[in-house]
Amino acid sequence: MTADKDITASLLLIGNELLSGRTQDKNLAYIGRHLSDLGIRLVEARVIPDEMDVIVEVLNQCRADYDYVFTTGGIGPTHDDITAAAIARAFGRPLQIHPEAEQRLRKHYGDKVNAARLKMAAMPAGAELIDNPLSAAPGFQIENVFVLAGIPVVMQAMFDSLIGRLQHGRPILAHTLTTDRREGEIAAGLAEIQNRFPDISIGSYPFFGDGQAGVNLVLRGTDSTQLQQAADAVVALVESLAGRIIAASD
Amino acid sequence: MTADKDITASLLLIGNELLSGRTQDKNLAYIGRHLSDLGIRLVEARVIPDEMDVIVEVLNQCRADYDYVFTTGGIGPTHDDITAAAIARAFGRPLQIHPEAEQRLRKHYGDKVNAARLKMAAMPAGAELIDNPLSAAPGFQIENVFVLAGIPVVMQAMFDSLIGRLQHGRPILAHTLTTDRREGEIAAGLAEIQNRFPDISIGSYPFFGDGQAGVNLVLRGTDSTQLQQAADAVVALVESLAGRIIAASD
Repeated sequence: MTADKDITASLLLIGNELLSGRTQDKNLAYIGRHLSDLGIRLVEARVIPDEMDVIVEVLNQCRADYDYVFTTGGIGPTHDDITAAAIARAFGRPLQIHPEAEQRLRKHYGDKVNAARLKMAAMPAGAELIDNPLSAAPGFQIENVFVLAGIPVVMQAMFDSLIGRLQHGRPILAHTLTTDRREGEIAAGLAEIQNRFPDISIGSYPFFGDGQAGVNLVLRGTDSTQLQQAADAVVALVESLAGRIIAASD
Repeated sequence: MTADKDITASLLLIGNELLSGRTQDKNLAYIGRHLSDLGIRLVEARVIPDEMDVIVEVLNQCRADYDYVFTTGGIGPTHDDITAAAIARAFGRPLQIHPEAEQRLRKHYGDKVNAARLKMAAMPAGAELIDNPLSAAPGFQIENVFVLAGIPVVMQAMFDSLIGRLQHGRPILAHTLTTDRREGEIAAGLAEIQNRFPDISIGSYPFFGDGQAGVNLVLRGTDSTQLQQAADAVVALVESLAGRIIAASD
């Protein structure tokens, strides 16, 4: 399913450990990159604590504002895993045991199943499961909201399994040019190129360290002809400043 | 300056490259960890694109809701660096050249100074500089908003230099216990401990890989006696389940 319209998404990263700095988030970059490949524009991400009222409020705002909402974190068996309950409340639906989820958990845990583990089958009424090939406990979809695990390897497996449910937009093409010039040298010419190509987004990201310095210029857009023309203009700009393109990639 | 009240903060991570997944953010974890050490509670972080209207709206909401707001990204010399202009608009103040910032840029760049580089001295009227010992171009503070670079090493140097301007809260103490038990085994006992110590926040973070699996239990609070009592209860719980504490740290 490919749409010609802009398809938007937001991401809620749920977990006190992200805000305290204990855990380095890796889910934003993975989901952002894959949505971009699908032509879905990730408009914002919000990092919020494991607090019922906050999750309910932010979730309800985001599911009204964007085509899709993804959440990560808070769907395990312990007391601090409250995402499923918060989402049920946000949708005004009862939280109830999903029979298929319960079956999967019983099969996975065998005689080690207990009340805490079965809590992972509690979902808002009407939820559709998202497979978890690694540790059984599924994520779930309800309307335009996709509820995923927080552990990156589990989240990634869940995300890969739900891609078929998403409407795709026009793929966002990217072209990266790395130059040895500094931002301050190319800034004026770059602004002029951006003005000439308003549908191409040109990002400028300086780097330094290890005796090297320069700028990564990232051009993004959906029209391959315009993208190539803008990239050619950037190469010409760099060469006019006696600079070099030291790497290029799509 | 140490206050006995709750001191709150939010963080705006500004940059298209974070949402597209091109760049892995590292600023949230650094700022979260350091604010926690200062007794300042980071309540939320928002990742937003380099778009004027979005930055203005989110900034105005956050500076009203929290004691402090930190921003990262978008203060360089190129066309996509619009954070200073957006913050001027959010405060309804003119964007103007800060004389001391201009002086620092002229000194740093010498005869290579140009209009693009001097743009980094454009700040909202009334801004106070935040030192940048690495690459000269300063960040700035305006009222309760601190505007920092996006490149992690530069952001960190700026952050370290502004700590003296912040009111500190009661330090948030943490104690981490790592056990070889699984979440599903300890969940019921852990919930009971959380109920007994409502002022201690107990987070449960499973890990697996490299043939090892278990849970990191992170206890956080401002009262060292309660924290120790809750930690003792967790150790007793693990031992009652024939488990081991394989690591402990503050």
